[in-house]
Amino acid sequence: MRLKLYVDRMSQPSRAVLIFCKVNGIDFEEIKVDLAKREHLKPEFKDINPTRQVPAIVDGRFKLFESHAILRYLACAFPGVADHWYPSDLFKRSKIESVLDWHHSNLRRGAVTYVLNTTLAPAFGLQLNPQAAAEGEKLLFASLANIESIWLKGNGRFLLGSSQPSVADLSLVCEIMQLEVLDEKDRDRILNPYKKVQQWMEDTKRATGPHFEEMHGILFKVKAKLQKQRLLGANNSSIKTSLQSKM
Amino acid sequence: MRLKLYVDRMSQPSRAVLIFCKVNGIDFEEIKVDLAKREHLKPEFKDINPTRQVPAIVDGRFKLFESHAILRYLACAFPGVADHWYPSDLFKRSKIESVLDWHHSNLRRGAVTYVLNTTLAPAFGLQLNPQAAAEGEKLLFASLANIESIWLKGNGRFLLGSSQPSVADLSLVCEIMQLEVLDEKDRDRILNPYKKVQQWMEDTKRATGPHFEEMHGILFKVKAKLQKQRLLGANNSSIKTSLQSKM
Repeated sequence: MRLKLYVDRMSQPSRAVLIFCKVNGIDFEEIKVDLAKREHLKPEFKDINPTRQVPAIVDGRFKLFESHAILRYLACAFPGVADHWYPSDLFKRSKIESVLDWHHSNLRRGAVTYVLNTTLAPAFGLQLNPQAAAEGEKLLFASLANIESIWLKGNGRFLLGSSQPSVADLSLVCEIMQLEVLDEKDRDRILNPYKKVQQWMEDTKRATGPHFEEMHGILFKVKAKLQKQRLLGANNSSIKTSLQSKM
Repeated sequence: MRLKLYVDRMSQPSRAVLIFCKVNGIDFEEIKVDLAKREHLKPEFKDINPTRQVPAIVDGRFKLFESHAILRYLACAFPGVADHWYPSDLFKRSKIESVLDWHHSNLRRGAVTYVLNTTLAPAFGLQLNPQAAAEGEKLLFASLANIESIWLKGNGRFLLGSSQPSVADLSLVCEIMQLEVLDEKDRDRILNPYKKVQQWMEDTKRATGPHFEEMHGILFKVKAKLQKQRLLGANNSSIKTSLQSKM
């Protein structure tokens, strides 16, 4: 039975899992759970993931949610996955675990809070919240500074001085890619101080191409539409309609 | 060379790592990093953990931070650790990973936000923030409800229907223990609806005793002191002084 991925490509952890499967030749069936249409709240999805979040997987009789847990599982369950994604060496693997754990309360929280409260909130029926956006921005800047100065310190192209990407590179880069939906000038303002981060994002894209671009296709479409609306001075409600028609 | 643990017993992830070592007979040296005295910001600690958080470990030449990454590492690096803490079976282990990952943005975020903004903020030179406290409370209640209805659903005494605790039980229970510093009525109001959570906490305490009680000693002292001050109607500044003298 094929692996089933319950995902929404507008969700950054969903894209990380999709790209991981594509790059590693893992055969899967993609089942879209449309977050903007609130499909994650339907009773049939509760049986797949009682916490009602994407991504989630079903592999035979085995169900699992949380993207990092899924990435670890796939790396171990599918023998074709190269060791660098989730090394068997305890010391290398533990350092990757440290980055994965750090991610939740730092880069992820900062980026999600900022993007939601400056841009995406209307698409989910929420109000933009400038105070929350300011808190998110602060955490996002601190997180990018940490990535640049701690994990990209060495000469390797990837996190922790590695010459090949791990699940942590994929997860973190997919998170930062969500900034694509921001106003372009704002995205540049945030990322421009971090040259190593920008180079590492390019290297991760290249190492996972063409699947990286393919799985981000919907994000680029939303980005283009939002940018057009900003130029036209459109209001929140039309941004909401636009996003929902794309998502 | 002995394993070095850089910890503050007032930090719940520090206590989880300390208890894990004690229960599993792992020999260690405890090095206190006093958060209330801002010792985590000192230059010498930056060499141990550049993100400046506790817990962190040094094992020979190997340095690691993030409590979940540390718990996984210790479970694998020390052969005396029983399998139930971090099972070698991929399916069992993956389910535990799912709980560990979920923890960061749910129970941990909810509990920390609530406890900080109702009680501990003055000890760190911060203002209490009722709006943040309300958001934390909401997430804390949702998280406790998830633990009760998803992971404590079966007949097992521990998470995921297990008959013995894992690193996830230890991490989550230590988090909830932080509610001890709240006003007793408030803590009861939060925990009373969750009978299975309360029983599971008792079972985890018993399974890790007497080390569990020992490592929470400082928390009980702070609890008693805060409770006394509440009865006397003391103000924030004396709570700050009191906490700093204990921490």
